[in-house]
Parts: sequence; structure tokens; C-alpha cells
Amino acid sequence: MVKVAVVGASGYTGVELLRLLAAHPQVEISCVTSRQTVGEEISTLFPSLRGKVNLRCDPGDPELVAAKADFVFTALPHQSAMEVVPSLLAAGRKVVDLSADYRLRDVAVYRQWYQEHTSPELLAEAVYGLPELHREQIRSARLVANPGCYPTSVALGLAPLLKQGLIDHPSLIVDSKSGTSGAGRSAKVGSLFCEVNEGFAAYGVGRHRHTPEIEQTLSQLAGEAVRVNFTPHLLPVNRGILSTCYATLLGNHDSAALLALYREHFRGEGFVRICPEGSLPNIAFVRGSNFCDIGLVSDQRTGRVIVVSTIDNLVKGAAGQAVQNMNLMLGFAEDAGLGGLGAFP
Amino acid sequence: MVKVAVVGASGYTGVELLRLLAAHPQVEISCVTSRQTVGEEISTLFPSLRGKVNLRCDPGDPELVAAKADFVFTALPHQSAMEVVPSLLAAGRKVVDLSADYRLRDVAVYRQWYQEHTSPELLAEAVYGLPELHREQIRSARLVANPGCYPTSVALGLAPLLKQGLIDHPSLIVDSKSGTSGAGRSAKVGSLFCEVNEGFAAYGVGRHRHTPEIEQTLSQLAGEAVRVNFTPHLLPVNRGILSTCYATLLGNHDSAALLALYREHFRGEGFVRICPEGSLPNIAFVRGSNFCDIGLVSDQRTGRVIVVSTIDNLVKGAAGQAVQNMNLMLGFAEDAGLGGLGAFP
Amino acid sequence: MVKVAVVGASGYTGVELLRLLAAHPQVEISCVTSRQTVGEEISTLFPSLRGKVNLRCDPGDPELVAAKADFVFTALPHQSAMEVVPSLLAAGRKVVDLSADYRLRDVAVYRQWYQEHTSPELLAEAVYGLPELHREQIRSARLVANPGCYPTSVALGLAPLLKQGLIDHPSLIVDSKSGTSGAGRSAKVGSLFCEVNEGFAAYGVGRHRHTPEIEQTLSQLAGEAVRVNFTPHLLPVNRGILSTCYATLLGNHDSAALLALYREHFRGEGFVRICPEGSLPNIAFVRGSNFCDIGLVSDQRTGRVIVVSTIDNLVKGAAGQAVQNMNLMLGFAEDAGLGGLGAFP
Amino acid sequence: MVKVAVVGASGYTGVELLRLLAAHPQVEISCVTSRQTVGEEISTLFPSLRGKVNLRCDPGDPELVAAKADFVFTALPHQSAMEVVPSLLAAGRKVVDLSADYRLRDVAVYRQWYQEHTSPELLAEAVYGLPELHREQIRSARLVANPGCYPTSVALGLAPLLKQGLIDHPSLIVDSKSGTSGAGRSAKVGSLFCEVNEGFAAYGVGRHRHTPEIEQTLSQLAGEAVRVNFTPHLLPVNRGILSTCYATLLGNHDSAALLALYREHFRGEGFVRICPEGSLPNIAFVRGSNFCDIGLVSDQRTGRVIVVSTIDNLVKGAAGQAVQNMNLMLGFAEDAGLGGLGAFP
Repeated sequence: MVKVAVVGASGYTGVELLRLLAAHPQVEISCVTSRQTVGEEISTLFPSLRGKVNLRCDPGDPELVAAKADFVFTALPHQSAMEVVPSLLAAGRKVVDLSADYRLRDVAVYRQWYQEHTSPELLAEAVYGLPELHREQIRSARLVANPGCYPTSVALGLAPLLKQGLIDHPSLIVDSKSGTSGAGRSAKVGSLFCEVNEGFAAYGVGRHRHTPEIEQTLSQLAGEAVRVNFTPHLLPVNRGILSTCYATLLGNHDSAALLALYREHFRGEGFVRICPEGSLPNIAFVRGSNFCDIGLVSDQRTGRVIVVSTIDNLVKGAAGQAVQNMNLMLGFAEDAGLGGLGAFP
Repeated sequence: MVKVAVVGASGYTGVELLRLLAAHPQVEISCVTSRQTVGEEISTLFPSLRGKVNLRCDPGDPELVAAKADFVFTALPHQSAMEVVPSLLAAGRKVVDLSADYRLRDVAVYRQWYQEHTSPELLAEAVYGLPELHREQIRSARLVANPGCYPTSVALGLAPLLKQGLIDHPSLIVDSKSGTSGAGRSAKVGSLFCEVNEGFAAYGVGRHRHTPEIEQTLSQLAGEAVRVNFTPHLLPVNRGILSTCYATLLGNHDSAALLALYREHFRGEGFVRICPEGSLPNIAFVRGSNFCDIGLVSDQRTGRVIVVSTIDNLVKGAAGQAVQNMNLMLGFAEDAGLGGLGAFP
Repeated sequence: MVKVAVVGASGYTGVELLRLLAAHPQVEISCVTSRQTVGEEISTLFPSLRGKVNLRCDPGDPELVAAKADFVFTALPHQSAMEVVPSLLAAGRKVVDLSADYRLRDVAVYRQWYQEHTSPELLAEAVYGLPELHREQIRSARLVANPGCYPTSVALGLAPLLKQGLIDHPSLIVDSKSGTSGAGRSAKVGSLFCEVNEGFAAYGVGRHRHTPEIEQTLSQLAGEAVRVNFTPHLLPVNRGILSTCYATLLGNHDSAALLALYREHFRGEGFVRICPEGSLPNIAFVRGSNFCDIGLVSDQRTGRVIVVSTIDNLVKGAAGQAVQNMNLMLGFAEDAGLGGLGAFP
Repeated sequence: MVKVAVVGASGYTGVELLRLLAAHPQVEISCVTSRQTVGEEISTLFPSLRGKVNLRCDPGDPELVAAKADFVFTALPHQSAMEVVPSLLAAGRKVVDLSADYRLRDVAVYRQWYQEHTSPELLAEAVYGLPELHREQIRSARLVANPGCYPTSVALGLAPLLKQGLIDHPSLIVDSKSGTSGAGRSAKVGSLFCEVNEGFAAYGVGRHRHTPEIEQTLSQLAGEAVRVNFTPHLLPVNRGILSTCYATLLGNHDSAALLALYREHFRGEGFVRICPEGSLPNIAFVRGSNFCDIGLVSDQRTGRVIVVSTIDNLVKGAAGQAVQNMNLMLGFAEDAGLGGLGAFP
């Protein structure tokens, strides 16, 4: 049993990591940290864990964490993550970082969308942890930057089209909708039940921080710079992301042909499911699971393809993908601890 | 007091009409019809009406309705509407029809997206009931075709841009999201609470019947044929439509300039509210009201404008707009009975 | 037009008062106060008000408020209310206070459940603002203590039984469920969307502060001291309270007889609706309205009566009842501005 | 691997059984039946199963099922279940029946609350499948009657008090609230999203069919006939039951003492968790898991104990408990396939 730590366990990503790791056959959760609740039982914060995860919160000092665990998940806000990750690596620990701090290759882009980076030398080393795109590099990585939730849904949804050069990228538009757990567990008026429930709105239009991450991955796939409109919206559900992507097709490709291409592209990928023609994904069917479900329609009237991609933002969009990365980094079966189906309804 | 009838009162549009009409100072509800529940108190079907609307359901025969009312709202499914509307007109009654039967000018388009039309001669006469576009024709109409919910949100959201020729129409993409009351009150597995709640999905991609209606109005505004991608999604809320519209700008126009244009375009319109720069609409703020709230962002990075338009699908998207049309047709103040603010939260 | 002020307008009760007052034919909102947002447009806080309520937030000083308004609603937390109410009265203004500060007759009880009272002399004067019980005293009151939301639902639900002495009070149990707007608009983790949505729990069992208020009213109705178990639960909805009340019947009374008694008791009451036999109320049917819907079942197997009472906690449970009280205090029609039906769905 | 069949797989209990069984290390799902969708892929009905459960629906004939499986779950409506269970037993298959058909010991009681029983001889043999009460009989049973969802929450919540004779049973009142999946997947207006969402109501007051089942179990625990008021309510959530139980204490027992008794009573029970003093359960924390969480308060003011018990109605209240029973009947570890924690949020 490998001893693993979850640094920053008091948020929604943290508790989801603990849920998944508690059911993982090859690891033992040996340390959970939460600055604000040091000394408290983690199951007091999250009674869902009671009886299975019996640990008290430690402070987040990297030395302590490195002493207690062989493998570390950092589930901290950006900026906080880069305060601890270098020390954890220096102590010889492998790390999956779930923040945005090591996702962007270009430190100038990071500075522009976030702030100054304090360990830019690690950007070159960090591997972007989307196993369906970078599996081999992940296997040998010390530091994996776990992708953002929106970017995961978009990259998987568009990879086959961009790889094959079937779309005109300047036409790309991504209209995404996310469940509220993506906004985190901090007490803000905008995240109150009565503000979100029975409501729906776009936010961060033209300036959401996942934009450069999306463009970085799509550009790699396309082999040239891709620029997109990315518009996130807040959904009144706990979990789930659905991205509706629009692009003008180069040449005539009907839905059946494109779906065949997608099935071929993702053949052997255990966590990507392609919907049959005439069927589209629903966040309800991936809830709690590590699947990414993708459907599409080729609209002959307008010459556009509409791709719809869904994930559970806390699983394939965060904790599940992090465990998938850990499995690769530690040589476990890639789906160890991740075999659960979504609970519908 | 003008006597009004609601034909097809057992659906969500019907009960919303009754709510609004019960508070209208110049009309009296004299007749409600519902084929399946003839003889039952309408307040048994909808206990929200108890104590204010004390009527039993009549069968929907046009002769009976015409005998009991001077003005008629037909809130029937398409095809059923055109079975009664001609008789009501022949009996000298003015009609606002909330179905799709009289919205399309071109009978061939109707045939293609719906079925054969049985009173095509009325298509020329019927006025498309979007007061912000066709106020004067509505005033003198016998038959008003009340617009669809999605088309209302899209037409109002894009009117200023199309009128001024500021966008490249082939680039137009409309990504819409609707509350579940839009699916009606019929018992279908797909509308069950457990299927919709905590779920989200696109539907009817590339083939939703509101597409030709949207294109008809946008084409009128643009002065030439407009073709759009329209993608509706089902939101787990009772009420509300939010349409996110994307288009490439012709020339450089920043958000402030475009918002100024919108405010100018809708000056004097009591039911359209333009959000201040930096603010975007939320369906929560129009719930229960007849407002259409519109916000926008000009994205200088991509040269596109993103317009977000919200309405309550049962009010401005159906019953409220129908009452607004009635007010115009009967010479009442346009906002009579429609002054209520949305109830937030 | 009487000028009215809403002191503490930034909460959910505040915005609901503004919604109702904006539609009231005999008043003009002349002042809104909110300490944290002085100078801001109230419609920036609550965009639902945009276009109808165009006022900037004032600080809450009673002198300023008294200078701007003839009638004042104080929608402040308890303790804050008693800091301003005495000055408002001294300045000759009539006040409806929506906090708990003037609801309890006995200052010792107030001290035990809340804290020290700073204007105990007003407790004798303040009238408990449940019009269905105290209409005449309200008409001539300077200060009305607007009832709590739970107590309103319980008092109306049990009044006929207690008045007629038909139940054994020691057997009384009240199991209540409230929508989340009752928890207010302050940013607390426990009120976040993801904590409340898809959840349900009891809280404050055996120690909720509405207990003494409920017991005070039930004791008045019964003519002797009544003690109850009151258990509130948090519902994942925005609005609505449903109280399920259990009591052992003295003597044999079937449902029909008890319902006849209820109809008789509430004859002429415009805001109380008694469900027909076999039908029970649903919070969905009072949402947004000032109605209290009551249903009951006499269970012959166990000799108990089960009474179910529903209100919208923000309307009949707060702002609507406050307006009803204002109407009585100012000699307006009791239902002025309160005629709206609930918006279903 | 034991081959198992799920008869009646098209409902919410069916799909939940498939989710749990797909993750069970010692069984293989060899047959799923659904009369209305014979020949269809079960993953077309429930896309959440795609990629893991690849079976087409069979008709439900017992011979076919017995030929394909060694162990059978019948997830049919009552009455339909007793049409197939006797044949399955006759064919030598062990059965967990999730309907109500074999839960009641007394055929007269069954007849009174349901209809005529067609295999009354099996009532004596069938074991009531609440492992925490009847573990040993379940181990050797051929036919286990899986308990109802409400009865499970109530029996576990009250067992220690009744066993120890600490409460006055005539005082017992059970106020329960259930998520909407309990109403099943059939298309009824009352289960539509817009009817349930933002609503809350009691139903079946005084006549819900779980009443005799609850009374049967509580009577066994008490050693004498117990009669209760049981009032179910419909919650606008997908999953979860919370039962609030009230009883007058015999003697003075504070919360700490009663909680100690509960911990002692359930010592070693892996699926029952007792909340610490001052904490109460929330359905959000058992969602998706097989746990029953119980909390309580002893109210010294009124001499009553209030017990709050929560389960996921589809897991411990149906499919999870069924798997737990299968595990006992087949000699597996009792928690095999049931180790998952609830997914919060």
C-alpha cells in the first residue's frame, strides 16, 4: 500500500479525492491537511467519510506531509500550490497538483492570466495530466499538472477533429456549463443556494482563466495557434460540465462518419464513451464516474459540427483524473479505484 | 370589463395566463377550456388559483367559447390550434394564438417543419406578436401569432445588431437553455423530476422547430436571408430561457459602444432592460416578470460579440407576451396587468 | 401616496418587501437602507428591481429614515432592530418590525432565548401582527411585531382546534420544513448551493428560537400554557414553509367535520384557504402569494389529527404579512398590493 | 462468479442494482429483463451503464431467467412479483424480492392494504431482509423480502429504544420525507420535474402502504403491538429518506446516554453510523452509499426523544440492502460491493 496525502482536503475536490482513494485497493490515505481546521477529524467536516476515513487534519507544511506520505495530491488554490510543490518534489515525493499553477507552458501567459510565478523552472518539467493525450509522459513524471475541468471536457471533445484537421479553427466557439461545485466551498453570496437555485447565467465572458489552458491544448492538437471564444455558465446542479462546441467543417462529413472517426480515435480509452448517432450525452449519466461522454451532430444546413462533451467536474474534471494520473505514475492499472459507474438518478 | 377565454387551460401556459389575467384590471376571465377535464374546477387542477379563479372547465368548441368571451387566447398544441382559430375569427372574436400554427409566413416552411396547414389563408393576415418589432400591426390585428419562447429571446437579443448591420450573419450561433416548463405538462419519462434534476443536455440539435421561426425574424431584421445554428438545452429549473448568441463583428465596436446602441434601440420599451457594462443577465431576475434582460460583451481578442438574453419562458416567452398583445389589440395600456417584478429569490 | 421606507433592504425579506411595495397602489418607496452598500443602487444588489425601484441605499440612521418616510418597515436582524425602532416611534413614525425583537410579551423569555432587551417598555405596546388573530389591535397600533415565518404557519394551522378545545395540547408535535431563503442572505458555508441542494436535515432540534413564539400564540389560543416539540428542517427550495402538526383529538371528529370547522373559523379571511377533503397543500401553490393553505386528516386508527399548513416564508411568513399589517395600520384595503396569485410552476 | 439476474431492470431500483452489481467482485450480471423494452440494450435505457453493462433486455419469464442465472433479484411492482417468485424458487433459484409482496407476515394484513395474495404459503418462509435485525435467518433463506425504504429508516432509527423499552409506544409519531426516485420511473404528471421541483407536500396521510410494514417490525422489536402515525412527504431531491421520529421517554435519559445506547446496540454493524452528540444526519451524506446515519436529541423540556434517521432510498432502502442480503445468502463478505462512500456534494 502506497501512502498518499491530500493537501487541502477541506474543499470539494479534497473530499472527492478522499472518497476515491478510500476505495482504491493499492493506496492508504496517511495524511490530510487543512489549515483552517487543524486537529479536527476530517469526518466532522465531511460526515460522508465517517467510518472509512478516520484522520485528523494536519497543517499543510511540506516537510510534515513528505514525512507522512510517499505520494501527494495538492488540492490547493492556485498560488498556494506553488508554495508547497517545489518542497515536496525536493523531498523526493511525486506530486499531482490540481491547481492551475503548473498547467501553462509559457510563464508569460501564466503571469498575464494569474500572477507572478515563483517556480517557473518547474513549468518545463511538469506534465499536463490528460492521460488520453499524454499517457507516456505521465508515466515517468515527478510532477503532473492536473487539467482544469472545463479544459478536460473541451480537449477530449475536440481532439479527433483537430488532430485530423477537419475544422476551420478560427470558427471555434465553446459554450460551457458547469455545476456549482466548480465554484468551490468558500462562503460567497454568489454561491448561496438561493442565488444559484432556479437561476442560470454566464460569467467571466471573454476573460475566464481556463481560456489560455484550453487554447494551449487545442493548439498542440492542431499543430498551430488556436484562439477560441470560451463562455462558461453556472448550472444549478452540484456536479457536471457540459461543453457545446461549434466549428465549421472543412469538407463534407456527416454525423456517422465523424462518429466513426471519434470511435477510432478513442479506441481502447476506458474513460471516453462515444454516444451512438442520434443520441447526445447528459451530465446525469457521468455523475460520480470518471467517464467523458461525447456526442455530435453534423449540421448539413450550416456546414458546422456541434460536439457535446460531458464530464463530472469533480471526477474526470479533477479528483478522478488525478487518481488516473497517480495510477500511471505508480504503475498501477490505469482504472484502479475508478471503476465505479455513475449513480443515476 | 372585457370577457376573455383561455382555450387549453390545463397546461403551464394556460395556468400562467390565468394568473396574469386574474390580476388584470380590465378583463374578466369568463371561460376556460380543457378537453380532458371538462366539468372540473380549474382550481382543482391548479390549486394556486383557488379563491381567485372559480370556473369549471368547458370543452373547447369554438361556438361555445365565442358565445362566452369577446377575446380568446388559444393555448393549444400546434395543429390543435388551427382546428379552432378560424371558427373563432369567423365568429368575430379577436384571438392571440400561442401555438406555432400562425407564426411562419411561408406555408411551405410550415409544412416542412410541422405538417400540412389547414388554414394557410390566415398566414398572410396573422401578425407576429413581438410588440417591440411589430407594435403597430398588432394594434389592428384580428389574429396575433404569439412568438415562441426561444425566438423571443433571440430576436430581442439580436435586433439592434442586425438592424444596424454590425455583424456578419453567417457567423451567427445561438446556444439556448430553457427551463423545463417549456416541455409542457404532459406525462413523459424524459420530463420526470429524476430525469431532469441534476441533469443537463442538449436536444433537437440541428432540427428544433423554433429554427425557422428564429431565421424568419432575424432575416426580416437583417433585410436578407439569415441562417443560424440554434442549439437548445434543457435546464433543471422551472422557468427561464437564456440565449447566448455569438457573432463576428463587422468593424471594431467595444462593449460600451454596443451597449449604448442597445439602450438607444430599446429606448421607451418598458419590457426590455439592458444590463450595465460588466454585468450579465440571470434568469433568476426575470422569473415571473415580463422583462427581457440583455447583456453583452465585445471580445476584442476574437472580434466577436457575445449577447446574452434572458426571459421567463412562461411570461415574456408565452403568457405575458400574449397579454401584452391583447393590451395592444384592445387599446389598453401596454403594461396593464404586467407590472409585476420578478420574485427573487 | 404614503412614503414608506425599508430599513435593511439588502436581505431576502428586504427585496421581497420592495417587490410588493413597488406594486402597491397607495404607497411610494421613498427610502431604502443598507449599511454595507450605502450609495449603491438597490437594483445593482437585486437586478430583479431594475426599472421599477430606482433608489440608492441610505445608511440606516433613524433620523434620516424618519425624515424621508411616513411609515417604516424594519427588516433587520434581531438586536439591530431594537437599536432603531424606539427612535422611529419617537419621531412619530409607525413601524412594522420584521425581526423577533418585539414578538415576545415576556421580557424574561426574550432574554432566555435571545439576549438582554434594550427597550422592554415597548413589549407591552407592540401588537403581534397576525391579522387573522389580532386584526383590531393592529389597526390602531404604532408598532407591529411581524410574526416569524414558522409561527405564522403553525398558529394559523392550529387556531381552530385550540380555540375549540378539540385537542389534547401536551400531545402537540410540530414538524416544520422551510425553504432556504429563511436562512438569510449572509455568506455561510451551510447555506451554499452544494451544501443544501440534494440535501435535507433537521436543525436546532429542541432549541430553535421560534419555539417560545409558537408557544406564546398557541397558549393564547388555548387559554392555558401550551408546550410543543418544534422541529425545523431545511428544504432545498428557495421559498416555502410546510408545517405538519400532530395532536391527539379529544373526542371523535372525522376529517369532514374538522374541515367544516376550519372553513367556518376562517370565513371571510382572504388569505387563508382550506383544502377540500382528500387534498393537502403544497408549498408550490402558495409560492409568491400571501396565502396560507391548510389541509388536514383525522386518522381514526390512531385518534390523531394531522394538520398541514403551508405559506411562502417570504410573503405570508414575512414581507406579505408586513404589508397586510401596514394596510390595516393605514386604513387601506387589507389586500391592497397583495392580490397576486402564486406563480406555478 | 455467481450469475445473477435483475428482473424488472428498467426502473430506478433496477438501474441501481446494476450499478452495484457491476462493481461486485464475486458476481456476474447474466440477465436483465424488462417487458416493455425486450431486445434493447439496457445501456440505451440507462446510458450511465454504457461500457460496463452490455446486455440486452430479456422478457421476464421465470424459466428463461432461471436458465440464465443462479441468483435472482426481482425488482417488480407488487403483484407482478408474486407472479414470478414462486416459479423461480421452484426452479431452485434463490431470490431477493424488492417488492412488497413477501414483507408482511399476515396474509390478511396484506389483503387489506394491497390485494389478494396468490402465494400466501411463501409468507411463512420468506425472511424479512433487514440484516441488522435478522442476519442469521437471512443467511439460510431461499427467499428474502427486501424491506421498504421508509420502513428501513424507521426500524433502524427506533430499534434500540424499542428493544430497551425506553419509550411509550402509543406516543410514537413518524414524519418521513423521501426523494422522488421513490415514486418510480413511470410517467405521471405528479412526478414531473415542474410539479416536484420547488414544491413539497405530504401524501398518503394515514393510509400509506408502508404503515403496516413499519408496525410489523416495530411490534416485533417492542414485543407487543405498536401502532404509529406515519406521514410521508415528497422531497424535491433525487435520492434520500429522512425520518423524524417522536416518542415520549419512559424515565429521564439525556442525549448522551441515549447515544451511548445506540452505539452499543449497533456495535459491529458496518452500515449504521451514529452521529456524535450535537450533530444530526443529512441525506446528502449517505447519497449513493449503503449507510444509515442516525442522530437524536432528548428534549428535557417536553420529555420526548427525537430520532432522525437517514438512508439513500435506492441503496440501503432498496438495491444496496438487496445486495447486502445476497451477500449473506451466498456466504460472501457482507459488505462485498458495498464499500463505496457517498459522493458529496
